[in-house]
Amino acid sequence: MAEKLTTRATDYSKWYNELVINADLAEHSAVRGCMVIKPYGFAIWEKMRDALDKMFKDTGHQNAYFPLFVPRSFLEKEEGHAEGFAKECAVVTHYRLKVNPDEKGKLMVDSESKLEEELIVRPTSEAIIWNTYKGWIQSYRDLPILINQWANVVRWEMRTRLFLRTAEFLWQEGHTAHSTAQEAIAETKQMLEVYADFAERFMAMPVIKGSKSESERFAGALDTMCIEALMQDGKALQAGTSHFLGQNFAKAFDVKFTSKEGVLDYVWATSWGVSTRLMGALIMTHSDDQGLRLPPMLAPIHVVIVPIYKGEEQLAMISEKIQPLMSELRAKGITVKYDNDDTKRSGWKFAEYELKGVPVRVAIGPKDMENGTIEIARRDNGTKQTIPMAGAAELIQHLLDEIQKNLFDQALAHRDSHITEVNTY
Amino acid sequence: MAEKLTTRATDYSKWYNELVINADLAEHSAVRGCMVIKPYGFAIWEKMRDALDKMFKDTGHQNAYFPLFVPRSFLEKEEGHAEGFAKECAVVTHYRLKVNPDEKGKLMVDSESKLEEELIVRPTSEAIIWNTYKGWIQSYRDLPILINQWANVVRWEMRTRLFLRTAEFLWQEGHTAHSTAQEAIAETKQMLEVYADFAERFMAMPVIKGSKSESERFAGALDTMCIEALMQDGKALQAGTSHFLGQNFAKAFDVKFTSKEGVLDYVWATSWGVSTRLMGALIMTHSDDQGLRLPPMLAPIHVVIVPIYKGEEQLAMISEKIQPLMSELRAKGITVKYDNDDTKRSGWKFAEYELKGVPVRVAIGPKDMENGTIEIARRDNGTKQTIPMAGAAELIQHLLDEIQKNLFDQALAHRDSHITEVNTY
Repeated sequence: MAEKLTTRATDYSKWYNELVINADLAEHSAVRGCMVIKPYGFAIWEKMRDALDKMFKDTGHQNAYFPLFVPRSFLEKEEGHAEGFAKECAVVTHYRLKVNPDEKGKLMVDSESKLEEELIVRPTSEAIIWNTYKGWIQSYRDLPILINQWANVVRWEMRTRLFLRTAEFLWQEGHTAHSTAQEAIAETKQMLEVYADFAERFMAMPVIKGSKSESERFAGALDTMCIEALMQDGKALQAGTSHFLGQNFAKAFDVKFTSKEGVLDYVWATSWGVSTRLMGALIMTHSDDQGLRLPPMLAPIHVVIVPIYKGEEQLAMISEKIQPLMSELRAKGITVKYDNDDTKRSGWKFAEYELKGVPVRVAIGPKDMENGTIEIARRDNGTKQTIPMAGAAELIQHLLDEIQKNLFDQALAHRDSHITEVNTY
Repeated sequence: MAEKLTTRATDYSKWYNELVINADLAEHSAVRGCMVIKPYGFAIWEKMRDALDKMFKDTGHQNAYFPLFVPRSFLEKEEGHAEGFAKECAVVTHYRLKVNPDEKGKLMVDSESKLEEELIVRPTSEAIIWNTYKGWIQSYRDLPILINQWANVVRWEMRTRLFLRTAEFLWQEGHTAHSTAQEAIAETKQMLEVYADFAERFMAMPVIKGSKSESERFAGALDTMCIEALMQDGKALQAGTSHFLGQNFAKAFDVKFTSKEGVLDYVWATSWGVSTRLMGALIMTHSDDQGLRLPPMLAPIHVVIVPIYKGEEQLAMISEKIQPLMSELRAKGITVKYDNDDTKRSGWKFAEYELKGVPVRVAIGPKDMENGTIEIARRDNGTKQTIPMAGAAELIQHLLDEIQKNLFDQALAHRDSHITEVNTY
C-alpha cells in the first residue's frame, strides 16, 4: 500500500483517482483514454455482471453477440443517431500494415488496403443490430425480440477519468423489438426498474428514477429514462439509462412486420444499458478516506483473516486452529482470504484490506488462541469485537447482511439530507 | 425449420454451413467477415465460457481487462509477432467523422482527426499486456502473474467460415509472467491439460496433445503446444493452443525482475487461448444429417417436452399433468423447455429439436395420460422408450449422463478407426 490517500475534504476528485489506483481497481493504459481493469476491480465488475445477467434472464432476455464494427453508411441512416456519435468515434480505414521501407523494423499503413467504406468501432449497437433484425422479423409471431449483449464500446473522449469516462468501456446493451408502442414503453420501464433494483439491492446505492429532458436524450430516442444517484460531493451521477426508441430505427432500417390483423407496420424498439461507470458510482457512494467500503453483495473477498504471530510455530498453530472456521464460512458461500504472507506486517495488512474495502476482518493472535476467541472488525463502521470462535461463522454471516443494509441506510441518509424539494425555477 | 440439410456425404462443408444457420447458432453479418452469434449459439458459448472460467480460477488465475487497441509501435517491438499479425489487422487511423458537404445526409472521415500513431484493433494482446506488466513487475515477489482475459479480437480474413474462421471472434487469452523458465513451461503444459480436460469432459471430444513444428508456431513463441480433434470428414481441427514465449516479450518490452538472490533478469512468459472456434469443433464432432447432437454438459436445453393433443382441453390436462415432472427435473438442475406453442405441429417440433440437438425429448399424449406414462427419445442414438411418469426424473438424469458418455465414446471410436500410426515420412 502506498502512502495515505488525499482526503475527500481536501480534493474529492484527487481522492477518487488515488483510490482507484491504490486499491488496485484500474489504471490508465498507454492507449489514450483506455483503461486497464486490474484483477481486483474486474472481480467486482464480474459480480455486477453476473447479478445483472441473471436479472435480465429472469425477465425473459437472452444474450447474443453482434459485430464490433458498424459500417459508416449504417450510422448515417438514423439522423439523430449519426449526429450524436459521429464526432467521437474510432474509424477503421485500412486492413493491413506493411514494412516501412524507410525505417528498419518499422511498420506503416499499407495504402493498398484502404477500405471502400470505413468501419466505425461501435459506440453503441443500434445500427448494426437493427440492420440484423431486419432479416429476423416478418410477422408479429417473430416478436418480441428480447436480446442483450455484453460488449466493449468506444467513444472517443479527450478528457477521461477511470471508470467514469473512458474512450473504451465495458457495458451491456439490451435491444428489444415489439409489435406495439405500449409493449415497448412497458419494456423501457421494466428495465429501468431492474436497474434501480440492482443498484439498491446489490450496490447498496439508493437511486432516483426519472426521464431526461429532450436535449439530454439518447441520440435517436423518443424518451430516455435514467437512474441517478447522489455522490458524496453532492453531485448526481447517471448510473443507467433505458430508452424508448419509437419506430425511429425500424424506419431507418426498414424493419416492418405483419400484425395479427394483417396490417404492415414498423417495429417498436427499446434499448437500455449500464456500463463500467457503475464501478465509479459504487466507489463514490460508499468509500471513505481510508479507502473502499464494498457492499458484501459485490465484494470479491467477504472476510479476510489475519494471523497475529511471532515465529513459524505460532503461525502454524493459528493456521490449524482457524481451519474449521474457514470451512464453515466457505460452506455458507462466504469468500474468505487467509493472509499468512510472512513478508508483510499485520499493521500493513490491516491498512491494505481497509483500502480494499473488505467488509469483515478477522484477527487471531496468541491471546485468542488461549481464550478460543477471534477479533472481528467491520469495515463499514470500524467497530471491533472479540467473540468466541464457536458460532463465529453464523455471526459473521449475519454481520455481512447488516453491513449491506447499513451501507444502504447511510447512503440514503446522506442523500435525503442533501436533497431539497424544488417546485419553481 | 427450413428444408432438410444437405447430407454430410453429399457435401460436408455445405452441410456445416446450413446446420449453423438452420439451427440458429450464427449468421454472417453485413460487416465483411464478422458474424452474429444468435441467442441459441451464444447460450452454448456461455456454457463453454463458464466451465472454462471456473477451471482457470481453480488453477489460480484471475480475470482482468486490457485495451482493445494496440499502438502500431507496440506491435513492432517483437519482430516475429509483428510479422505474424501486421498483414491481417484492422487499422484505426482517425477519431472523427464529419458531415459530407458534397452529399446531403452523408458522413465522411474528418481528415483533421488523423491519429499521430495508428491503433491496431487487437489481433491478440501480448504487446499491450506486456507493456502493462512492465509497470507491475520489479521483484520476484510480484511474480507469478496469472491473468486471463475474455475478449473480442480481430484478424482480417478474406475467406471466412462461421465459428471456424471469422475476422472478429470471441476468445480468452491467458497471459502469465514467471521468474523461471521451468515455471513458465509447467504453466504452458498445465493449461494444455486444462484445455484437453475441458474438451473431453464438457465437449465430449477426444483430443490429441502435441507441439507445433517451428513453422506453425505462434508468432513470438518458443514452443506452441496444442490440442487437436478429428472431425467427421477425417480432418484434424486445432482447438486450443498454449505457448511458451520464453523471454521474447519481456525483452521486447524491457520487463525485468530482481530475483531472490538479487540478480536482474528478464521475465518468462506464457500465453494460451481458445476461441469461438470451439463451437465449430463441437458441431463437427457430433452432429449428423438431422442436425446438432449436443453433449448435455453444454446443451442450453436438456429436455424438451412436447404435448401431443387435440384441442385446448386436452392441452390443459397435459400441461397440468406434466408440471410435477418439470419441477422435479428443474430441482435436479436440468433445463427443461415445455413447448406448448399452438401454431406448430408436433412433427415440426420433433424435427426442430432434433436439428437443435436437444439431448432428450419427452412426448406425452392422450394414451400416456391414461397410462401414466411418457415417451422418451434420445437424440444421440434415436432410441425411444415409453416409461412410467413416476420416477422419470431420475431416469432422465441418468440418461443425460449416459448420452454425454456415449457421444464421447462414439467420437473416440471414430477417431481411433481413422488414425494410422505413422513412424516414417
